[in-house]
Amino acid sequence: MSVIHNCHVTPLSSSSSAFFAQNRLSVVRTQIVSVSHKKAGVCKCVATSPAEQTAYKTNVSRNGNIAKLQAGYLFPEIGRRKAAHMLKYPDAQVISLGIGDTTEPIPDVITSAMAKRALDLSTVEGYSGYGAEQGEKKLRAQLASTFYANLGIEEDDIFVSDGAKSDISRLQVLFGSNVTMAVQDPSYPAYVDSSVIIGQTGQFQKDIEKFANIEYMKCTPENDFFPDLSKVSRTDIIFFCSPNNPTGSAASREQLTALVKFAKDNGSIIIYDSAYAMYVSGDTPKSIFEIPGAKEVAIETASFSKYAGFTGVRLGWTVVPKELKYSDGFPVAKDFNRIVCTGFNGASNIAQAGGIACLSPEGLEAMHEVVGFYKENTKIIVDTFTSLGFKVYGGIHAPYVWVHFPGQSSWDVFSEILEKTHVVTTPGSGFGPAGEGFVRVSAFGHRSNVLEACRRFKELYK
Amino acid sequence: MSVIHNCHVTPLSSSSSAFFAQNRLSVVRTQIVSVSHKKAGVCKCVATSPAEQTAYKTNVSRNGNIAKLQAGYLFPEIGRRKAAHMLKYPDAQVISLGIGDTTEPIPDVITSAMAKRALDLSTVEGYSGYGAEQGEKKLRAQLASTFYANLGIEEDDIFVSDGAKSDISRLQVLFGSNVTMAVQDPSYPAYVDSSVIIGQTGQFQKDIEKFANIEYMKCTPENDFFPDLSKVSRTDIIFFCSPNNPTGSAASREQLTALVKFAKDNGSIIIYDSAYAMYVSGDTPKSIFEIPGAKEVAIETASFSKYAGFTGVRLGWTVVPKELKYSDGFPVAKDFNRIVCTGFNGASNIAQAGGIACLSPEGLEAMHEVVGFYKENTKIIVDTFTSLGFKVYGGIHAPYVWVHFPGQSSWDVFSEILEKTHVVTTPGSGFGPAGEGFVRVSAFGHRSNVLEACRRFKELYK
Repeated sequence: MSVIHNCHVTPLSSSSSAFFAQNRLSVVRTQIVSVSHKKAGVCKCVATSPAEQTAYKTNVSRNGNIAKLQAGYLFPEIGRRKAAHMLKYPDAQVISLGIGDTTEPIPDVITSAMAKRALDLSTVEGYSGYGAEQGEKKLRAQLASTFYANLGIEEDDIFVSDGAKSDISRLQVLFGSNVTMAVQDPSYPAYVDSSVIIGQTGQFQKDIEKFANIEYMKCTPENDFFPDLSKVSRTDIIFFCSPNNPTGSAASREQLTALVKFAKDNGSIIIYDSAYAMYVSGDTPKSIFEIPGAKEVAIETASFSKYAGFTGVRLGWTVVPKELKYSDGFPVAKDFNRIVCTGFNGASNIAQAGGIACLSPEGLEAMHEVVGFYKENTKIIVDTFTSLGFKVYGGIHAPYVWVHFPGQSSWDVFSEILEKTHVVTTPGSGFGPAGEGFVRVSAFGHRSNVLEACRRFKELYK
Repeated sequence: MSVIHNCHVTPLSSSSSAFFAQNRLSVVRTQIVSVSHKKAGVCKCVATSPAEQTAYKTNVSRNGNIAKLQAGYLFPEIGRRKAAHMLKYPDAQVISLGIGDTTEPIPDVITSAMAKRALDLSTVEGYSGYGAEQGEKKLRAQLASTFYANLGIEEDDIFVSDGAKSDISRLQVLFGSNVTMAVQDPSYPAYVDSSVIIGQTGQFQKDIEKFANIEYMKCTPENDFFPDLSKVSRTDIIFFCSPNNPTGSAASREQLTALVKFAKDNGSIIIYDSAYAMYVSGDTPKSIFEIPGAKEVAIETASFSKYAGFTGVRLGWTVVPKELKYSDGFPVAKDFNRIVCTGFNGASNIAQAGGIACLSPEGLEAMHEVVGFYKENTKIIVDTFTSLGFKVYGGIHAPYVWVHFPGQSSWDVFSEILEKTHVVTTPGSGFGPAGEGFVRVSAFGHRSNVLEACRRFKELYK
């Protein structure tokens, strides 16, 4: 360390960067000079040697909760395996039906509105700075009237966000480390991982592949993918995703009525993830708030990602009804508002313009078309695996097909499919121990890729 | 509750919303019908009475950490007072030099790039879904070369975010509840509030207006707004903002060298907020990483908000050098990466296109112009208060002017200025007890508004 402290910094290297030069010409010149100096090894004082880099440690302890997490977060791990496969087979046409990423272009009516908002930001009249942390009033009102008409959810119950994943973490910060939680098993890994991070759980128990102090609600074909609530212990928080990621099943009205009653009997709070609601057909509920009394026990989080292809644009929302109260009577929404105001500054105004366009009559029609397209993909995948003799679940109310490989390891199946067909899927066990023996096949893909993947599946499993 | 459970939901009201109708015509029709039903009071089962709304409480305890927070977050509180003032004086021309919100249009070169990216999302070639959680590779590389050339910060040390405020909360989640922290007093309130929320502090002590278990590092004219480190207790984390919000002062190279030495001697981690770095002139450091050895003890968070008017677009970044290690030698960046991957899905791709444009030669030039404009505003405000005989601080390396009203209450001064000049400022005590007796005047405003505000200040204080 003393080497570093004693090293005199030259005027050139002490300039933090070319950025701060006063005009463009000098920017370019300084940058070139800097690079050549660096290459020449003149600026040694900042280029510490590997030995020095590893020598110093702070006295700050690593957060023990994060240390509890297992391996990498699921989807980056799949990304790494995909990348390794592509290195191994550089000429293969790899098809991803893995991480559930949308592939179809965003309808014009929506991107035009975003482009317009972006350009308007260059005008005095159209410029806007900080927006409300909770989202633009117009968007909140449209969300209320579009998704929750007649359900008693009002504009001020809705918090616009940069996506459901961010809101799940914000909800964990809201409830803190002293609550207990339940999740469907299998489930979207962000629920469990964010719970571990905030300190609600014990250590990971390798033998049963579960974290201590989380109630895993088994959802398998045997119970129609709905937990046997008579066997579920009371927890403060119940994460529930329907239509479900990864199993693709959607809970019925009767099942959700039972869930709300269970929550009410226990004084629990349901965090209902409805990110795939628009894929639901018929009378199956699209919102937990369709269940009478749910406003007193439930939060709902949702997203434009899978409706309008906004996975990269980033826009979602969370409903915290004013009727939802802590045990001392304090409204949960007031604390969530504080979390949002302290740790978030609102979703991008350009994305919000896109959200408003999504909810126009033309935008709604365009989103229905996108969803309809992915539902056709889903049917192709379901039919393929069914024709090959597999037991296939989901795929009706959700863009996910949950294929059963009884007695096999999910990761083995994932690897075999990748190795032999160059198709990326997602191993069921990555979503929880009850996902073992399943593989999730996502219906997000160009039609030609879905057809080609299915052709390869037929080749592999003929 | 039983009333709700027994209430049969009609097919109309059980449809969650018009959104899920299958085509546009039926959307419109259903919506109209729904509204009229609601107005007619037919759908009573979801419209619970006020008595019912307040009756039910869950058994979930309110997060005790959030309960420790005082009143509202500062800036929404100022927004409420501004709104109340506007109700009281509906015809007044209220000028906001309060919350530090940018006002000038975003340069064309930047919005054009965002509009183009938005429109490209409607094409097969230009569409992109989930991006890397850490940000687009091109943007990360540009940030490294533009802001940290010669400083040893590399592309993979940089995490692109939706803004510094979000990253501050993510950093608190990273470190968790078992660390201790220090802040400059006064300071940007998100540091303290996010620390309270995550559970690092004790209760608020009303007599001294401080939270227990936070080290407040007093920064006043007496110590040149740099803490007397010989009197500062060791903490795990040291939040340090320079150029400072709210005092407008920027720490010198000698001061920052002392700060890095202090952190190193104590094994502490500095979270350095450099959101105003581009306002710095001369040799004053723009990045903590200009100080030799800082990579082993510091994280830096930054933002496009005040350079390119991105307060509403939302784009920032945080640098976590790979050299920064916990006491057990584990790299902090690995855990931060996990936090980002679990609780964030990347900044909006459209905003990132804007960031890339900001760092083009034309974008850099345009940002320098924006910053130059606000610096001229700053000078006008400094000159005004100086001419009126006030002691004025800041305003050289930052867009904030810190005006001293010795012996007066900040909130009283704030209220008097608002009442008599219709100008919104920010009370210094809102940033911490050492801010008492000061008012922060922001230089973000149209020139005509800044001139008019200064005219009114001269009228008030002549």
